[in-house]
Amino acid sequence: MFLTRTEYDRGVNTFSPEGRLFQVEYAIEAIKLGSTAIGLKTKDGVVLAVEKRITSPLLEPSSVEKIMEIDEHIGCAMSGLIADARTLVEHARVETQNHRFSYGEPMTVESTTQALCDLALRFGEGDEESMSRPFGVSLLIAGHDEHGPSLYYTDPSGTFWQCNAKAIGSGSEGADSSLQEQYNKDLTLQEAETIALSILKQVMEEKVTPNNVDIARVAPTYHLYTPSEVEAVIARL
Amino acid sequence: MFLTRTEYDRGVNTFSPEGRLFQVEYAIEAIKLGSTAIGLKTKDGVVLAVEKRITSPLLEPSSVEKIMEIDEHIGCAMSGLIADARTLVEHARVETQNHRFSYGEPMTVESTTQALCDLALRFGEGDEESMSRPFGVSLLIAGHDEHGPSLYYTDPSGTFWQCNAKAIGSGSEGADSSLQEQYNKDLTLQEAETIALSILKQVMEEKVTPNNVDIARVAPTYHLYTPSEVEAVIARL
Amino acid sequence: MFLTRTEYDRGVNTFSPEGRLFQVEYAIEAIKLGSTAIGLKTKDGVVLAVEKRITSPLLEPSSVEKIMEIDEHIGCAMSGLIADARTLVEHARVETQNHRFSYGEPMTVESTTQALCDLALRFGEGDEESMSRPFGVSLLIAGHDEHGPSLYYTDPSGTFWQCNAKAIGSGSEGADSSLQEQYNKDLTLQEAETIALSILKQVMEEKVTPNNVDIARVAPTYHLYTPSEVEAVIARL
Amino acid sequence: MFLTRTEYDRGVNTFSPEGRLFQVEYAIEAIKLGSTAIGLKTKDGVVLAVEKRITSPLLEPSSVEKIMEIDEHIGCAMSGLIADARTLVEHARVETQNHRFSYGEPMTVESTTQALCDLALRFGEGDEESMSRPFGVSLLIAGHDEHGPSLYYTDPSGTFWQCNAKAIGSGSEGADSSLQEQYNKDLTLQEAETIALSILKQVMEEKVTPNNVDIARVAPTYHLYTPSEVEAVIARL
Amino acid sequence: MFLTRTEYDRGVNTFSPEGRLFQVEYAIEAIKLGSTAIGLKTKDGVVLAVEKRITSPLLEPSSVEKIMEIDEHIGCAMSGLIADARTLVEHARVETQNHRFSYGEPMTVESTTQALCDLALRFGEGDEESMSRPFGVSLLIAGHDEHGPSLYYTDPSGTFWQCNAKAIGSGSEGADSSLQEQYNKDLTLQEAETIALSILKQVMEEKVTPNNVDIARVAPTYHLYTPSEVEAVIARL
Amino acid sequence: MFLTRTEYDRGVNTFSPEGRLFQVEYAIEAIKLGSTAIGLKTKDGVVLAVEKRITSPLLEPSSVEKIMEIDEHIGCAMSGLIADARTLVEHARVETQNHRFSYGEPMTVESTTQALCDLALRFGEGDEESMSRPFGVSLLIAGHDEHGPSLYYTDPSGTFWQCNAKAIGSGSEGADSSLQEQYNKDLTLQEAETIALSILKQVMEEKVTPNNVDIARVAPTYHLYTPSEVEAVIARL
Amino acid sequence: MFLTRTEYDRGVNTFSPEGRLFQVEYAIEAIKLGSTAIGLKTKDGVVLAVEKRITSPLLEPSSVEKIMEIDEHIGCAMSGLIADARTLVEHARVETQNHRFSYGEPMTVESTTQALCDLALRFGEGDEESMSRPFGVSLLIAGHDEHGPSLYYTDPSGTFWQCNAKAIGSGSEGADSSLQEQYNKDLTLQEAETIALSILKQVMEEKVTPNNVDIARVAPTYHLYTPSEVEAVIARL
Repeated sequence: MFLTRTEYDRGVNTFSPEGRLFQVEYAIEAIKLGSTAIGLKTKDGVVLAVEKRITSPLLEPSSVEKIMEIDEHIGCAMSGLIADARTLVEHARVETQNHRFSYGEPMTVESTTQALCDLALRFGEGDEESMSRPFGVSLLIAGHDEHGPSLYYTDPSGTFWQCNAKAIGSGSEGADSSLQEQYNKDLTLQEAETIALSILKQVMEEKVTPNNVDIARVAPTYHLYTPSEVEAVIARL
Repeated sequence: MFLTRTEYDRGVNTFSPEGRLFQVEYAIEAIKLGSTAIGLKTKDGVVLAVEKRITSPLLEPSSVEKIMEIDEHIGCAMSGLIADARTLVEHARVETQNHRFSYGEPMTVESTTQALCDLALRFGEGDEESMSRPFGVSLLIAGHDEHGPSLYYTDPSGTFWQCNAKAIGSGSEGADSSLQEQYNKDLTLQEAETIALSILKQVMEEKVTPNNVDIARVAPTYHLYTPSEVEAVIARL
Repeated sequence: MFLTRTEYDRGVNTFSPEGRLFQVEYAIEAIKLGSTAIGLKTKDGVVLAVEKRITSPLLEPSSVEKIMEIDEHIGCAMSGLIADARTLVEHARVETQNHRFSYGEPMTVESTTQALCDLALRFGEGDEESMSRPFGVSLLIAGHDEHGPSLYYTDPSGTFWQCNAKAIGSGSEGADSSLQEQYNKDLTLQEAETIALSILKQVMEEKVTPNNVDIARVAPTYHLYTPSEVEAVIARL
Repeated sequence: MFLTRTEYDRGVNTFSPEGRLFQVEYAIEAIKLGSTAIGLKTKDGVVLAVEKRITSPLLEPSSVEKIMEIDEHIGCAMSGLIADARTLVEHARVETQNHRFSYGEPMTVESTTQALCDLALRFGEGDEESMSRPFGVSLLIAGHDEHGPSLYYTDPSGTFWQCNAKAIGSGSEGADSSLQEQYNKDLTLQEAETIALSILKQVMEEKVTPNNVDIARVAPTYHLYTPSEVEAVIARL
Repeated sequence: MFLTRTEYDRGVNTFSPEGRLFQVEYAIEAIKLGSTAIGLKTKDGVVLAVEKRITSPLLEPSSVEKIMEIDEHIGCAMSGLIADARTLVEHARVETQNHRFSYGEPMTVESTTQALCDLALRFGEGDEESMSRPFGVSLLIAGHDEHGPSLYYTDPSGTFWQCNAKAIGSGSEGADSSLQEQYNKDLTLQEAETIALSILKQVMEEKVTPNNVDIARVAPTYHLYTPSEVEAVIARL
Repeated sequence: MFLTRTEYDRGVNTFSPEGRLFQVEYAIEAIKLGSTAIGLKTKDGVVLAVEKRITSPLLEPSSVEKIMEIDEHIGCAMSGLIADARTLVEHARVETQNHRFSYGEPMTVESTTQALCDLALRFGEGDEESMSRPFGVSLLIAGHDEHGPSLYYTDPSGTFWQCNAKAIGSGSEGADSSLQEQYNKDLTLQEAETIALSILKQVMEEKVTPNNVDIARVAPTYHLYTPSEVEAVIARL
Repeated sequence: MFLTRTEYDRGVNTFSPEGRLFQVEYAIEAIKLGSTAIGLKTKDGVVLAVEKRITSPLLEPSSVEKIMEIDEHIGCAMSGLIADARTLVEHARVETQNHRFSYGEPMTVESTTQALCDLALRFGEGDEESMSRPFGVSLLIAGHDEHGPSLYYTDPSGTFWQCNAKAIGSGSEGADSSLQEQYNKDLTLQEAETIALSILKQVMEEKVTPNNVDIARVAPTYHLYTPSEVEAVIARL
């Protein structure tokens, strides 16, 4: 049945006879190869936690950035092609700065997410900033605005959803199950940190250390945990 | 006979020997995979009802938007690729705002629909806003203007029809039959709500709750029902 | 012999070894799938009559527009892809309005037809308004200008002919034969109406009603018949 | 040997290994399917005569234009795709008008022909006015300028030749033989009319009438014969 | 070994694995099908002689131009696609006129040849004046400037050579051998005329007449021989 | 399983069904064919050492530049296609000069690396400076800024990592193992030189001489070692 | 193993799975078909010597230019496609003239070489001056600037090396071996002339004459030897 499917992914943004967009599906495969990232929303703020694959002891762990700040009230965790994620984040940073400059107030988390997804959707269109293929990355966007804390999940098709908790990357399937079991809306920020890291620990093949995970919170401003703050969370596990 | 049909869908907007446009047909397949949406026109206004597929309990139901406002007198329900629908709706919002600004009066529902379809028709043309493939989405556009209430149905080919009632998405075939049986022009708005939701209930595989359906009306202005308003309609079933 | 014919239609506007333009031929196939339309020229004006396929009782018949006004002295009936026809008609409307504005007089019917065909001819050329494929539609253009009433027929190749009477669409073959038998130059407008509708009745599979046919005349200005006017013609059959 | 020839015509303007341009050859095939046209130069002026294929008695014969005026001292007969010919003629009309406007004198027949052929030569180049394929038409260009009467013949490759007499279209082979037998430089215009029509009569499958042939002369200005003038020539046969 | 060679000529300007440019080689094939042209340089000036293929007695021989003036001190003979040659010659005419206008002196023969070859080299580059394929023509460019008389030979690759004598076209192989035997630097212009025509006579299949050959000289200005001048040379054979 | 993989690398920037970007992987192959380069960061500065393949004794060794200065505080070693590396380095030089001009201070090493990678990421996008394929080169970027010394490693995908030590090129696998064994953060610059060269010696097939290796340091400014300085390091081995 | 290699050279600038750029390799094949050229650097200046293939005794030897002046202090010898070389040389001439005009001093030999290679590297990029394929030519660039005499060798990939001596073209393999045996840094210019010509003599199939070789030196200005100067060198062999 799929003998001819390879025919359809050459036009990067073309439907297959079954109504599928193969390049988007292939990009999603790229994310399944990525490191795991987890987000949890609490009433006090959002927690992001990511696995960092340090392939060599000579690599500087802090240069493997899987959590990045977009604006002071928005951060994001990523899984997939890091260079693609950087382009999206850079785009979002410009959008949020422009918004502050034009309107004198921070951009809402949803508008920021929408701006990111508009760029992601238009792959293959030959636009200035868009790419000739889908962006091979999923993002967990954590933010805090006039509507309180929020967590968004985006995929390579340019679609986004608001979530209470979500995992992406190679370990996402198991992590999502664990999140459904352990999540409730009354979690404190500290409990959310503990849950995120304990689930990350399950899906990682090696011991969790401040070198191979990153944690950040938006509560209500973005803060990337220092190694000793990460160590403290590890100690609570 | 169709051994070579795959040859034709690479030029995204090219006729097959039988005079068919395969990319449009494939996009229609994408919609058959979508969630079901229903629209009914009454003399007092139009009712829209959609199924929302909440794939995870951690997903925020209100972020799965399948009914969106275009202008205060026009709303639409969608089935298919949500990111595509957002682009079309955003285009329509700009058009209706421009119309209000230029002429000091609301755009008619037909002109709004025509503007949406003009964009949809021109896929593959390399225009600024158009896409390199058909928009993989069908819309039910509900509105109220100087001609009274009206309901339009659009498909990926950029064609539109005015209807009294219409269903789109994976359950559309069964839902359309039910609509033909139950629809009459003298329905009240409340009766239309009940019919829409009872038909939706038949085609959905799970229990209907305020979390997995959305209802809206344009009568004469757009209003998306609150969870308790949806609950009230469910209670009437 | 035609094993390799599929090779030729990928360049949308490329000759085959036999000197044929396949995309144009395939577009003509699209029209053979369309509903039937008939035009007759009399000394008093031109009559257009079309079959409307109302696929669902919930469809609003008046929204299935197969006859459209171009200018007050020109109208047209269409068969094929309705969205394509709308683009052509919209182009012709702009041309005729521009002509009135620039020269203070109505555009002749032939010039209007030529303007439409110029656009149709240039498919695949990457122009602003032209499409990347032939327009999948045939038009019967009825008009009245300083040369009196006239009827033009256009096809997807951008060619046009002036006719006394012509049928297009799925039933065109039988309808053309009937027209040759029944047409003469001394028909009154009323006789032309009756002939058009009686021939349409033969090629339609269902009973003729004001819901599933449209009639219009240009004599000397465009007028689309009201349901009761259509009813009156039906009554004369 | 020609199994792979189809490989070469996809690049519309690409040499085959034998040094041939297939798209031009295929366009010439399109002309071989066209109606026959004949031109004869006499010392008093040039005569053009064409067969008109009236496929239906309901077609208006005068709307099947196979002879067209370019300027008051130049006309042309055509065979092949009529819509293509119209584009070339329209181009030539603009060129001759511009020339009159810029230089205050008529454009020579050769310059006009060269201008037409420059456009025809550049198919596939993406220019503003040129097409993505060869123009599928041959022209016989009759004119009268300071060098006296002249007759040019153009083909889809953009090449042109000056002739004393020439036939194009489906009957050209037989007609050319007859022309070589019957032509001499001392023919009067009337004799040329008679020869042209008698040869046309031989290659046409039906009786010659004012409805299915057109005759024009440039002597020294362009004149398309009225039906009664054509009738008079027929009567002389 | 050459089963796959057809793969390489689709990119019009792409190397084959053997380092060959097939489109250029195929264009050279086009020239081997062309009529023969001969050039000889003497100390008094350059002689050009060409075969003209008059395919029909009704063709006007003078309209088959195989020798053309570029500037008053430069002329050229051509073999291959005449329409291509016209484009090159037109380009060279503009260049030489611009040079006279800008510098108040004639362009040298080498610079003119280089300008022609620059255009020929850039086929497939999408430039304004260049073509999407190689120019299918070879030229013999005869001129006279401050360095005295000179003869250049160009081929479709955009390469040129200066020669004392050269033949191009279908009979070039035999003609080149004869030229090597008969040429010496002390030939008078009249002797060169005789040699050129006698060699042309050998390679032509029909009797040489003023109708089927053209002769021109640049000594030091361009002059195309009148029929009686050609007759005089023929008489000397 | 990979029979069809060749299908995917023609769109230069297209995902395969497994979510891979083949052109990037193929570019990485190009680097595996390149000469070996090594970088080590110490607290006093960064050392770069490269193998130079002198294919002929007549080649000028100093013209084989595998280590280049970007700005006075940044240098880089490269492996892969040298011409590609030159383009990237030239781009980085312009960026750092612009930064100095605009802000009156040196660009940070990370920003410089990011600027290089932004260009590398956008291959296949048709931008002004980007290429139609990935840059076939890896860089070790050594610098010293307000954050102290730093060493970055970039690959053809446009991704970069910060490292303490890293080897690239054909001998990188063995060299990376040796680096992990011998590296510690307290190395002096001199020790780093010795380690770099001793590892390079292991992976090179010939004797190490000042002719076939280059050494540079950024401590805190860029300095390329003279032959006698290299000789001194060799002497220490 | 190479059955599918032809797949990779259609994208002119695309990596193969082995990390190779086939079009560059194929262009190098074109150079292996070219005539041999040799360069030697001495302390007093650089000598270039080339074989000229005079295919016909009627060809003007001086018009076969295989050594060209770039600026008064730079010259180059070439092997491969001459028309391509002319484009590169013309580009270099403009660059060096611009440099003189802008900075009032000659451009260095390395900068000139870099400018040439920048153009060569960007084939297939659609730039103004670059080509759609690699330039099929290698150059030996001889110059003399503030750093003394220098000799550069460029290949179609846009890479360049500085050499003491180098041969290119069909006889380069044997010639390079001879150069390694005979070259030393203390050669006088006259000895270099003798070595260059004696090696050229070995690889040429015919007797060396002033007609079939060219010699030039840059010492410190460019000078192309006259036939009698060449004769003098031949006499010394």
